[in-house]
Amino acid sequence: MHSFQELAKKFINRFDVPHFPKHPATLYEPGDYFLTIGGKRIRPVMCLMGNELFGDITEDAYSVAIAIELFHNFTLVHDDIMDAAPLRRGMETVHTKYGPSVALLCGDVMIIKAYDYINKINIEHIRAVMELFNKTATEVCEGQQLDMDFEKQETVSFDEYLHMISLKTSVLLAASLKLGAIIGGAGEANCNNIYNFGLNLGLAFQIQDDYLDAFGDPAKFGKDVGGDIRQNKKTFLLLHALEVATPQQLTTIKELLNTDSADKVERMLEIFKACNVAAWANQLKEQYLAKAYKYLDDIAVTATRKHELAKLAEYLIQRQS
Amino acid sequence: MHSFQELAKKFINRFDVPHFPKHPATLYEPGDYFLTIGGKRIRPVMCLMGNELFGDITEDAYSVAIAIELFHNFTLVHDDIMDAAPLRRGMETVHTKYGPSVALLCGDVMIIKAYDYINKINIEHIRAVMELFNKTATEVCEGQQLDMDFEKQETVSFDEYLHMISLKTSVLLAASLKLGAIIGGAGEANCNNIYNFGLNLGLAFQIQDDYLDAFGDPAKFGKDVGGDIRQNKKTFLLLHALEVATPQQLTTIKELLNTDSADKVERMLEIFKACNVAAWANQLKEQYLAKAYKYLDDIAVTATRKHELAKLAEYLIQRQS
Repeated sequence: MHSFQELAKKFINRFDVPHFPKHPATLYEPGDYFLTIGGKRIRPVMCLMGNELFGDITEDAYSVAIAIELFHNFTLVHDDIMDAAPLRRGMETVHTKYGPSVALLCGDVMIIKAYDYINKINIEHIRAVMELFNKTATEVCEGQQLDMDFEKQETVSFDEYLHMISLKTSVLLAASLKLGAIIGGAGEANCNNIYNFGLNLGLAFQIQDDYLDAFGDPAKFGKDVGGDIRQNKKTFLLLHALEVATPQQLTTIKELLNTDSADKVERMLEIFKACNVAAWANQLKEQYLAKAYKYLDDIAVTATRKHELAKLAEYLIQRQS
Repeated sequence: MHSFQELAKKFINRFDVPHFPKHPATLYEPGDYFLTIGGKRIRPVMCLMGNELFGDITEDAYSVAIAIELFHNFTLVHDDIMDAAPLRRGMETVHTKYGPSVALLCGDVMIIKAYDYINKINIEHIRAVMELFNKTATEVCEGQQLDMDFEKQETVSFDEYLHMISLKTSVLLAASLKLGAIIGGAGEANCNNIYNFGLNLGLAFQIQDDYLDAFGDPAKFGKDVGGDIRQNKKTFLLLHALEVATPQQLTTIKELLNTDSADKVERMLEIFKACNVAAWANQLKEQYLAKAYKYLDDIAVTATRKHELAKLAEYLIQRQS
């Protein structure tokens, strides 16, 4: 069994090659540019780990891992257009560097290339892999749409947010593990357990992401702490605060949502503190994490094989950046 | 054997249903809207015709035909964003009606849905169908990119244009026929012949399209005659004129390309006439048509089975609108 870090190295060795032909360079150079600006490659490595849980890692698992990473990058390129994001990982986004039309087409050829990799796998798994891949890809698009819808909505319930964030981020983590498991020949119960492990881990991860954005140590977090608050982003923290705030706190929150004042982050954090948002978030994260571990426990393979997945969960959740 | 019109009816019967779930309506209503604003459904019917050439039409052929039409609509939704086109078939484009972000995602879920239909077919053909589908989808994107590149280029050679237009329009017609043939169990030689029939027919069709835009009868053509000239679109006609024009005519063409004067279309048509562009285009169209028929001849099935495909070619090329 390999650690996440070992598998990340193995994956990157295969992934860090040009994926596109030379011509037309106006279309393909942007794609290869974006694929080289990095990223932790969490999803494809989860596919490899899901695969190794049930046996030696196969060529097919690498093909599907590459397909997953290409799909993920397709969503990033298109999301960056929709969000008008100038930078990703400190580098220019595709639409900023090459224009929105090129970025649109660049994403399109990336998802088609993902299906090219799926088409390389052994025929016995192709139907199940395609089915889960398509379902997940559709859900990720639905999540992005709901996220955009919520930006325009005055109120979003906690459950609505949970649904959206599951679609937008967790289902792809869950599916990555399950796709690896399918290729590893896992049965239905094991496949469902590993999927639900990933789904709950993804939610715990997202809660932590929201938490770090508000309460993280700027030196360790890397990103701009308080960015979500400044952008009025609906997060686990804000939605909880809205649910538990006193009428007076509620008035202040609404006032803060309508201002760009210099002390906006500071004042919102004061309310978060008064509402015990941090402790609540921590507790919720632990709940999802416990659920995740329960599903991991239920997977019918010897405990030692699960060790690296448990370590991955720990690594993802303990991270400070 | 069925005629194009009969198969179009059969196809539309299956295709004119909602293809997407109800929720989120903000994402899926735009998709179903666009799929109902019409179109001749030429490509999916060509898939059915390619299939029937080798036997009775199968369920798989319908699935792939639907996938082809969904893919085609995906390209239209995204192209309309890139071209900032307000209308298609007299109806509002998706980005005009719902905004560019929705249109982008709407296209994305449409191509994923196309792969969903491909995943329904019998496992024995899935690899070959995916391979040709992916190759063609990639080429169509390349064609769109080259088309955008050419808009910014001062000069485009006739061969460059031919390559671009093959990718942008002909390969999907060719692939539609071949996908039907693959599912019908056709051998490699027959598959290649039907592909090349479609490719050359597509080029003949495009030449005629360019011709009608310049010389068509406005009453019959439907579209705005002279539109290509007004928009400085590089067409078969303009590129040929640029190649054969006298230095003096060349000066006038370049002058016209830099003006929006009221007599622009009229004056360009005068040069086209002086350069015998119409006769040349007609001859070129006939050459591609002859090549197409040659490939049709070479398909190893009895002549009577090919009758409807020959009629389709005639119908597409004789059309006045």
